[in-house]
Amino acid sequence: MLKYRKGISDMPAYDVAERDWKLKLNANEAPTSLPPLVEERVLTRLSRVSFNRYPNHELQDLGEQIADQYKLRPEQIFLGNGSSEIIEKLFFAFGGSGHSIVYPEPSFSMYRIYVKAADAKGVPVGLEEDYSLDREKFVRAVRESKASLAVVCTPNNPTGNLIPLEDIEYIAQNIECAFLVDEAYLEFAGEKESAVPLLKKYPHLIVARTFSKAYGLAAARVGYMMADAAIVEMTEKAFMPYHLNVLSLVTADIVYQMRDEFLPRIYMLRDECRRVGDALKDMPGLTVYPSHTNFILLKYAKAVELNEYLTERGIGVRSYGSAPRLENCLRVSMGTREENDVWLKEVQRFIKEKG
Amino acid sequence: MLKYRKGISDMPAYDVAERDWKLKLNANEAPTSLPPLVEERVLTRLSRVSFNRYPNHELQDLGEQIADQYKLRPEQIFLGNGSSEIIEKLFFAFGGSGHSIVYPEPSFSMYRIYVKAADAKGVPVGLEEDYSLDREKFVRAVRESKASLAVVCTPNNPTGNLIPLEDIEYIAQNIECAFLVDEAYLEFAGEKESAVPLLKKYPHLIVARTFSKAYGLAAARVGYMMADAAIVEMTEKAFMPYHLNVLSLVTADIVYQMRDEFLPRIYMLRDECRRVGDALKDMPGLTVYPSHTNFILLKYAKAVELNEYLTERGIGVRSYGSAPRLENCLRVSMGTREENDVWLKEVQRFIKEKG
Repeated sequence: MLKYRKGISDMPAYDVAERDWKLKLNANEAPTSLPPLVEERVLTRLSRVSFNRYPNHELQDLGEQIADQYKLRPEQIFLGNGSSEIIEKLFFAFGGSGHSIVYPEPSFSMYRIYVKAADAKGVPVGLEEDYSLDREKFVRAVRESKASLAVVCTPNNPTGNLIPLEDIEYIAQNIECAFLVDEAYLEFAGEKESAVPLLKKYPHLIVARTFSKAYGLAAARVGYMMADAAIVEMTEKAFMPYHLNVLSLVTADIVYQMRDEFLPRIYMLRDECRRVGDALKDMPGLTVYPSHTNFILLKYAKAVELNEYLTERGIGVRSYGSAPRLENCLRVSMGTREENDVWLKEVQRFIKEKG
Repeated sequence: MLKYRKGISDMPAYDVAERDWKLKLNANEAPTSLPPLVEERVLTRLSRVSFNRYPNHELQDLGEQIADQYKLRPEQIFLGNGSSEIIEKLFFAFGGSGHSIVYPEPSFSMYRIYVKAADAKGVPVGLEEDYSLDREKFVRAVRESKASLAVVCTPNNPTGNLIPLEDIEYIAQNIECAFLVDEAYLEFAGEKESAVPLLKKYPHLIVARTFSKAYGLAAARVGYMMADAAIVEMTEKAFMPYHLNVLSLVTADIVYQMRDEFLPRIYMLRDECRRVGDALKDMPGLTVYPSHTNFILLKYAKAVELNEYLTERGIGVRSYGSAPRLENCLRVSMGTREENDVWLKEVQRFIKEKG
């Protein structure tokens, strides 16, 4: 009998392998690869990589570029394998036996799992009926649990709604522990909604971002955190040396340099969210939640059957089955206009036939 | 005051950023990038990546290819960000409070650090005067510490010597805990020295490999473990979903398909090890340790001064300063023949001037 770490057998196993969808709308990916101009420069840069050398200055180069953009110091930026790794390591750095981590529910499903991996105690705070966050309730939960870390996600995944910036600041003012604002979808809501400018005022604040969503770079797995240099210095210890590979780093570097090229796509996806949302609202029995992201959450009494119907037609959406507070909910990532018309038509057909 | 994880402030911080060496021989990297034919196919494959999609079947594709090569089942292979991540996560999976991990000393310097990160107790077993491993002493240490995991590195980094396969099997026969054989440099010693064929017989055995050394792919950070499916299944839980990016995976996939193209380089580096070793042995005051890798460990009373002398000339080697059992030792990675002649000449000059 091998002696595994206590508790590891209870940890969930992931099977992220997928079937080949005709239309893949289940992971909030961008519907198209890089803009041609960006792709060309990325491939040229990749052709210059010294494949035989360990990562060297590439991590700093990208960090400095991001710092520059937000008028932060390079020591305030740290990059990881997606914002997932950033979140995982922050949970580790503030976790451990006897430490509590507060997070909203429903929200990004990995919070619960990273709490477990960090050997911490999870304190979920239920969102309201309309999925808004009650800031008083959240602050109370942080204080009562004497939490070491509090997390919110804005715009929230999978509900799509934004936490008003004044609520973020209210929470920052009223809690003393580390406070992570997960802004994975922020670029869709617009920079004016970001907590980054609050970093100067609140040294316990941390903002996480990703290249996987608005910049459509999910294949490369690059994300980053922005925080007080002291937090970065301590969290960095939880990462192994050379944790990020050169290919992903130089790709993200070019993408960040050319980020304006992504604006048309971001606007298109926001437009589609509105158009598709309006179309869905007209369908009987569907509840559509307002979204500030590239996806839509909808509630429907026959969501499970609808999901099966779409699956049979090669259309992959995210179904929440009986997940608490997400019963009968489906999350659909926005595709191109043409793609969205395809699945909208199938939803209409389902409702007509079986609704 | 932020509430960090207990013990995290004692963890070492890494600064892996490097100066721009004229000749970089300090990280056991390959001296040249990919063979031209391989590079061409890698770049073609990279141009076909859907940058917007999360990793999907790429992990399995490469895993199946490796399984095929070793007549293992795909469930016996797991890939990570370098063998570093494999080792880190294995230490985590078998670590935790009250668990001991046994490893040789001197060996790969990260073992000690991953033990700490895993919140386990490290039990170093000193190598003999000639850096060989006393198998009885090792087995005794495992038994006495009731270890959950034992690790050896063969050929050993930084000493370069091989652990005879019969000693590996002897240890496997005489310990009951998980037993990791770190074969990061194995391709230089030859497959006949590998513990992989023992996997069938010993379900507690684990072999770790990397693409960073013999396959010269340090930039991509890809490594893998081979073990009983039950060990893979449990260890996998310690990895986050999508831990490996698509760019690195498809690159490693092509490299593995074309691994025969790397044989000339491997033979060249082995030849250089012999040639350079012989040249160094003739120099007064130098002790050269036999190497089965792409690097040489040498001992010299004035190693610290020699290291400074080389550094001033833009030549980077790995100096161990006052590290236990490695006092006055330098580790030098093999470059091309021309590169090796450059630093050999500088060593000669140093000895003549100041030796």
